[in-house]
Amino acid sequence: MGIKTKDEYIESLRSLNPVAYMFGERLTNIVDNPRLRAGIEATGATYEMAQLDPGLMITTSPLINEPVNRFTLPPSTLEDLVARVKVNRKLANYVGTCPQRCTGLDCLTALAVVTYNVDQKYNTEYFPRFQEFLKYMQKNDFTANAGVTDVKGDRSLAPHEQVDKDMFVRVVEQKADGIVVRGAKAHQTGSLSAHEIIVLPSRAMAKEDKDYALAFAVPADTKGLIHVVGRSTLDMRELDGCDIGNQYYSKYCPTLIFDDVFVPWERVFLFGESEFAQDMVVKFSALHRQSHGGCKAGKIDCMIGCALTMMDFNGTSKVGHLKEKVIDMIHRAETLYGCCLASSYEGTKQPSGTYYIDTVLANASKIHEGKEMAEATRLMIDACGGFVADLPSDRDFSNPEVGDLLKKYLKGVDSIPVEKRIKMYRLAEKLALESADTISDIHGGGSPAAHRVTIFRETNVNDKKKAAKRLAGIKE
Amino acid sequence: MGIKTKDEYIESLRSLNPVAYMFGERLTNIVDNPRLRAGIEATGATYEMAQLDPGLMITTSPLINEPVNRFTLPPSTLEDLVARVKVNRKLANYVGTCPQRCTGLDCLTALAVVTYNVDQKYNTEYFPRFQEFLKYMQKNDFTANAGVTDVKGDRSLAPHEQVDKDMFVRVVEQKADGIVVRGAKAHQTGSLSAHEIIVLPSRAMAKEDKDYALAFAVPADTKGLIHVVGRSTLDMRELDGCDIGNQYYSKYCPTLIFDDVFVPWERVFLFGESEFAQDMVVKFSALHRQSHGGCKAGKIDCMIGCALTMMDFNGTSKVGHLKEKVIDMIHRAETLYGCCLASSYEGTKQPSGTYYIDTVLANASKIHEGKEMAEATRLMIDACGGFVADLPSDRDFSNPEVGDLLKKYLKGVDSIPVEKRIKMYRLAEKLALESADTISDIHGGGSPAAHRVTIFRETNVNDKKKAAKRLAGIKE
Amino acid sequence: MGIKTKDEYIESLRSLNPVAYMFGERLTNIVDNPRLRAGIEATGATYEMAQLDPGLMITTSPLINEPVNRFTLPPSTLEDLVARVKVNRKLANYVGTCPQRCTGLDCLTALAVVTYNVDQKYNTEYFPRFQEFLKYMQKNDFTANAGVTDVKGDRSLAPHEQVDKDMFVRVVEQKADGIVVRGAKAHQTGSLSAHEIIVLPSRAMAKEDKDYALAFAVPADTKGLIHVVGRSTLDMRELDGCDIGNQYYSKYCPTLIFDDVFVPWERVFLFGESEFAQDMVVKFSALHRQSHGGCKAGKIDCMIGCALTMMDFNGTSKVGHLKEKVIDMIHRAETLYGCCLASSYEGTKQPSGTYYIDTVLANASKIHEGKEMAEATRLMIDACGGFVADLPSDRDFSNPEVGDLLKKYLKGVDSIPVEKRIKMYRLAEKLALESADTISDIHGGGSPAAHRVTIFRETNVNDKKKAAKRLAGIKE
Amino acid sequence: MGIKTKDEYIESLRSLNPVAYMFGERLTNIVDNPRLRAGIEATGATYEMAQLDPGLMITTSPLINEPVNRFTLPPSTLEDLVARVKVNRKLANYVGTCPQRCTGLDCLTALAVVTYNVDQKYNTEYFPRFQEFLKYMQKNDFTANAGVTDVKGDRSLAPHEQVDKDMFVRVVEQKADGIVVRGAKAHQTGSLSAHEIIVLPSRAMAKEDKDYALAFAVPADTKGLIHVVGRSTLDMRELDGCDIGNQYYSKYCPTLIFDDVFVPWERVFLFGESEFAQDMVVKFSALHRQSHGGCKAGKIDCMIGCALTMMDFNGTSKVGHLKEKVIDMIHRAETLYGCCLASSYEGTKQPSGTYYIDTVLANASKIHEGKEMAEATRLMIDACGGFVADLPSDRDFSNPEVGDLLKKYLKGVDSIPVEKRIKMYRLAEKLALESADTISDIHGGGSPAAHRVTIFRETNVNDKKKAAKRLAGIKE
Repeated sequence: MGIKTKDEYIESLRSLNPVAYMFGERLTNIVDNPRLRAGIEATGATYEMAQLDPGLMITTSPLINEPVNRFTLPPSTLEDLVARVKVNRKLANYVGTCPQRCTGLDCLTALAVVTYNVDQKYNTEYFPRFQEFLKYMQKNDFTANAGVTDVKGDRSLAPHEQVDKDMFVRVVEQKADGIVVRGAKAHQTGSLSAHEIIVLPSRAMAKEDKDYALAFAVPADTKGLIHVVGRSTLDMRELDGCDIGNQYYSKYCPTLIFDDVFVPWERVFLFGESEFAQDMVVKFSALHRQSHGGCKAGKIDCMIGCALTMMDFNGTSKVGHLKEKVIDMIHRAETLYGCCLASSYEGTKQPSGTYYIDTVLANASKIHEGKEMAEATRLMIDACGGFVADLPSDRDFSNPEVGDLLKKYLKGVDSIPVEKRIKMYRLAEKLALESADTISDIHGGGSPAAHRVTIFRETNVNDKKKAAKRLAGIKE
Repeated sequence: MGIKTKDEYIESLRSLNPVAYMFGERLTNIVDNPRLRAGIEATGATYEMAQLDPGLMITTSPLINEPVNRFTLPPSTLEDLVARVKVNRKLANYVGTCPQRCTGLDCLTALAVVTYNVDQKYNTEYFPRFQEFLKYMQKNDFTANAGVTDVKGDRSLAPHEQVDKDMFVRVVEQKADGIVVRGAKAHQTGSLSAHEIIVLPSRAMAKEDKDYALAFAVPADTKGLIHVVGRSTLDMRELDGCDIGNQYYSKYCPTLIFDDVFVPWERVFLFGESEFAQDMVVKFSALHRQSHGGCKAGKIDCMIGCALTMMDFNGTSKVGHLKEKVIDMIHRAETLYGCCLASSYEGTKQPSGTYYIDTVLANASKIHEGKEMAEATRLMIDACGGFVADLPSDRDFSNPEVGDLLKKYLKGVDSIPVEKRIKMYRLAEKLALESADTISDIHGGGSPAAHRVTIFRETNVNDKKKAAKRLAGIKE
Repeated sequence: MGIKTKDEYIESLRSLNPVAYMFGERLTNIVDNPRLRAGIEATGATYEMAQLDPGLMITTSPLINEPVNRFTLPPSTLEDLVARVKVNRKLANYVGTCPQRCTGLDCLTALAVVTYNVDQKYNTEYFPRFQEFLKYMQKNDFTANAGVTDVKGDRSLAPHEQVDKDMFVRVVEQKADGIVVRGAKAHQTGSLSAHEIIVLPSRAMAKEDKDYALAFAVPADTKGLIHVVGRSTLDMRELDGCDIGNQYYSKYCPTLIFDDVFVPWERVFLFGESEFAQDMVVKFSALHRQSHGGCKAGKIDCMIGCALTMMDFNGTSKVGHLKEKVIDMIHRAETLYGCCLASSYEGTKQPSGTYYIDTVLANASKIHEGKEMAEATRLMIDACGGFVADLPSDRDFSNPEVGDLLKKYLKGVDSIPVEKRIKMYRLAEKLALESADTISDIHGGGSPAAHRVTIFRETNVNDKKKAAKRLAGIKE
Repeated sequence: MGIKTKDEYIESLRSLNPVAYMFGERLTNIVDNPRLRAGIEATGATYEMAQLDPGLMITTSPLINEPVNRFTLPPSTLEDLVARVKVNRKLANYVGTCPQRCTGLDCLTALAVVTYNVDQKYNTEYFPRFQEFLKYMQKNDFTANAGVTDVKGDRSLAPHEQVDKDMFVRVVEQKADGIVVRGAKAHQTGSLSAHEIIVLPSRAMAKEDKDYALAFAVPADTKGLIHVVGRSTLDMRELDGCDIGNQYYSKYCPTLIFDDVFVPWERVFLFGESEFAQDMVVKFSALHRQSHGGCKAGKIDCMIGCALTMMDFNGTSKVGHLKEKVIDMIHRAETLYGCCLASSYEGTKQPSGTYYIDTVLANASKIHEGKEMAEATRLMIDACGGFVADLPSDRDFSNPEVGDLLKKYLKGVDSIPVEKRIKMYRLAEKLALESADTISDIHGGGSPAAHRVTIFRETNVNDKKKAAKRLAGIKE
């Protein structure tokens, strides 16, 4: 037990046996499937970085009083909150995509705050249960995956109003030793790279939605749990082992079906206390939106590096308007980073002892991300040139008849070997056009509209009205 | 001869035997290759529409005095100029991607204007030569493909300064009956769907670049011409015949290598008159940027339809912020359309008799496109939801073990069959994430910086200064 | 009678005797009040330009079969529609602000379309009445002013629901020879520069709002009509005759109170036909939004001239990022111009014989204006420098103690006399910070939200849905 | 001595006798001039707030070991850095404009960092001199004003290349007891509200510009110093005492002429060490750009309050698109705040012991400000309505003939007294259209281009390139 190396992490996944489908077929070996492995490697980087930069990644858990990887630690100090952002930026820059371990931490943190509050009100024992679960995660350095986004059915209806009652995960049976749950969660980035799935409600629940006000954790290979890996734009590249832009890492997103899954009581962290559903999802969402901010700043860093290197290779590194575009990219990265850092620095200690971020600043970052990642990507494409879209295959470059001609003509600056330029174009393609990333920039952590609603709700508008009235000379 | 049906068009391609590679292999059957066929079908739609809507698509050529498809007619009236925009919007809406026949028309039009001017100065005979070629195109209703974008090597160097002199297409030998050319052209959208390749210079040329100041046409399967089809994000979908979002159409973009290709004199339309290289590329570019405007308005129309239908299927058609996003999409479509229409309506007759558009307004449209297509796409993704990125495969939906579960959980509004919703998500994925489209929005018709330079160069800034000085009371 | 010169126009205003207030005082001489005169001069430019450029400004009215200034002619051909845009761009560039005569023409045009339609339904005689009025306007070359924007009271209530029933202009008495109206219209740009005030409803009306479904015209000095000139940012400059940036022209905006004004029947053009209120205001609004587009393109032209001249004077004309900002300004001007031109070119003949524009394209232009005029202004300020805000007074420059020092230190490029630079800064201040212009960019022709609602309502979204469904393979 | 009250501050200004001009006249009483007084009151609020919220505003100076107002304290801890942002936001919200005391603090801080570094290299004694000056400032709780922006003459020439050598402040004579300086500084916001003027270089200096590499401090009324107050949009309102939107506060910006001003050696903090000129201006600028961020967040808070109150008064508080616009405003305020807070939290201790901010994050904030304050203002105008531009004068409302009519018609929601609505419109006008604020949003702390150059220069782009190369599989 204790902190795992990347190899230990990957080996530990081999002992799991989840039910998984991809392209219509049941998968038997997750870890060695090239498509999933690229995602597992990205999560693996969170273990690797613990070896490479332990100062950044490892700290002591006050719960188990042992060193832990930060991805298992709900922040117990302001410094922990700040480290979140720096860890995410560094790792995303290292892997050039989503490291796929933050959702689990964001769940652990939300639970560390809210279960305590539920217990205070209802005299329940969710918090001690959760702490036992947390110890288990920390001692084993496990990766958790957040199951939040219900498939939702008709969006104009509440969970209990749906024709098919299973469109939000719900309890269908209550037993002596636990509960049986049914439903499905979408967009489960990295669910097959995780040891545990933590399920939270995806929205506020009314009293009538009591059966849906659920939080719990199950192993990723528990009975009845089915992972169906979704398609993404470049998925065949990894399977073919050809024309892969990012040499090491990628991302995949299953839909997760809970086909009557049993959850023992010790793994149940919310059960019918409807009014806490909102608190749980709001806390998780704010945390996850902040995780995105650090992460996407790191990804933009990669995109900046890609653009600048391509400019070197193309002979355009002195072109003024391209430099301006790089500045626009830097500005976007720093805006995400700045808002997220501030969100951490302005965090506060919650009753449970866990530290929690400033919600408005976290959401302010996510609003930028939802719009500006697309813009940063567009800028990178602009700086790189058209071959981001239609570069011939590596197999064409290896073809004896046409390969040399292609290498002749794909050359940029004469002093740079053509192979380097081709590789950088492939990376640009991956950075720009991996759908699992693109859509997550927009919808990850809830839709853009949700982020906006949040900053309005969390802002004290009355104080602002008062200030304006005083200056206008209006007595209330 | 005369106007072809779609079937005749496709059959006519079978008689061509171009040298083509894809994924490292020599292609033997272009027309029946599912990936290329989807592109051919898109061009085929320009023939199909001539049957469906002849009033829009067919007019009489004053050159041959016969009815022709508008895609072979350099505008001979203001109405022809206006029809360009309406044709492009309608067709792009019909195919949901680029119909891939406008580049040829834009070349024909640029040549119809500039060859005449060259002849006036140099007493050459390019214009009559070109007219013969044009007759041939019109009588056969052929599709031409524009070869403009040289591979360029080191962008900081002029053509003649390159270490490898072949980085721009150039003449390497002059013979009694013609010339031999060498070089490569990139991003040749639809080159295998065309009968003829028309080559124009890609930039202004100085005297020293005389060998590069070339315009000519060759059959798509002429000796020495090699098409290497580039990769794009969703190319394997079409090859696999599975998870294809757009049921009928797609786009592909080869790199085209001119490996010492012979061009007979009657097909040479510029040969060393360096100072006309700029005029040719500027004219072509303005025309092509305008073609984009109509086309992309039509594609946004599709994306609007996709977003609104998905909102119907998701139960979100009444959600205010989503409706606002649709309005933002409409606004972008109409802006492109408005600027391009105005560019046509304000067109003028050139000395050769051909009508030519207003350059500033055409470029104003393209500046919007370069930025706003990405935004329209982002808005569509926002309105549709996260499954744009990670929808399970059709094969998963057909899988006997997991298919029914997926169909249960992927349902939106209860009254809409789940299959419809899945299909619309697939279309959204294709509309949003087909790299051949995405990058063309940015780089098609030249880079965004080129469009900006053009509107500045073509604007009479002195008049504006004078107006300001008068109002300020400054006597010159 | 017939076309007036600018002098004749100004003299004609002297014969009017409107009730007007400004800064708390009753005004006795409108024409020679320096503040109002600067506005009158702007409208006067529409008369002056008729002499300077009759080809642009004068055409023959089919109604009176005499030459008329275009500002009195509802478009009777497509060419007339196109001329609207070109006239507005040229004039606004000439005066550097709003020429303040388009609102009247936009009313005349809306009435020329809608009164005919009302008559068709109700067998009323509004159209012939209106034609008589129009003849009078044309023969005298009069300026009309549009009274549209009611003061509105509580915006959440319909006219008839207001506590004070006078918050929208309404009929309060019906007499044998006419009606008595009461209410107030806000933001009446140039009402004291006009001979006639034309009143239209400001919103759709329900049956219960019958008393508010009114259109009519009254002389600007009719009994009971009160003009109260509002404050604007730079109003004291004109009154003081010092530190005036625009040497000739300005703009002012009264609130207009109808304190029981009698309107004879021959001047009543809508009276209770509630369902046509919407048509009238929608038509007027679309026309007026289009008028804005041409006009603001012309104002941006001025701002471009100001920025470029200031760059010459500052020694920054070669600075890359400033040139890019000028390009951004050009792009905005051309976008407004392009959308508005297209809106005219795509216009259609209405049942009454009057030509009417494409509504969607007109509103597309106004959406840009509402956002982008502020951006164009910001860019001009950026290019000019900080003295746009805090240039010392001309009186400081004339002060014997400090004037020479100021002239020494305010110099830019040595070869340019300091006086020129100071004058151009004053113009920049006026172009950037005249509130009557700034707010009109946003709210003129209705609020930005109204423009958005319009393009959605006028767009055929079902066709777009159909196109998407076909491509997705969804059978309806 | 010690911390002053607002009254003591204002009294202390009476003992100064600066040479000042406004509207061509020599000013004799600064403090009671209504226009200048409104600015002095804004600075006075920094003293008032020290009484109202000492926890925020007062801390102990390690230099004099006494409590000081934060505006005299170069940050000596990370907490001090953070307090900067919170102080500025709170104060700007309190006064609704610029409190005009931050420039002095930003100079003190830059000097506290850089003078030490100069001494280290040249064995000079600037740092101890500066500390004596700082003690004097702290013990007297004085306000300092930053004189940075030289008038610059021809922007394409360096200081020593100008035809008139005085276009940047320079030393013209060296004496035993000090130096004589000549030149002018523009945009000296609040120079007459300050006790001391601190002059820093406005740009990097080459060796040849040695005479311009100067930093020093002089009393605001020292011999040879001339303040010429510039015009701003609403200046006459304050002088007239009528139609003042902000009841208490305003801003004014003189040009400051140094007409051979003597500076004793003990007040000279840089003298010819050219290579430190850049360091000084870069440090000052970054600090000042960060001051802006906190300040403008506070001003947006006011604008939000104004918009929301006006919506209450207009009956539009439930209108969806207006609420979205308020959210857009909140988002902008929080972005500035977040980036600036992060800039402080990530600050570092400098060799002199003073704490200094993260430059990139400070500039990231300012880039937003330069663009987004204009947008926030536009949004406020949109939410408030057209009377922001053309509200009748208070004198009209008091006029016995027309006042009651105006009050009747200017009413919004019936339950709100019309006077309140009128006052809030006046405030909106002031918030939106005070040129001294508007232009400062863009040019304050250097032009937008300068902020962009800074974030590029301060970013480690090589690390980003390395990360991209690793992922692309490129070995260096």
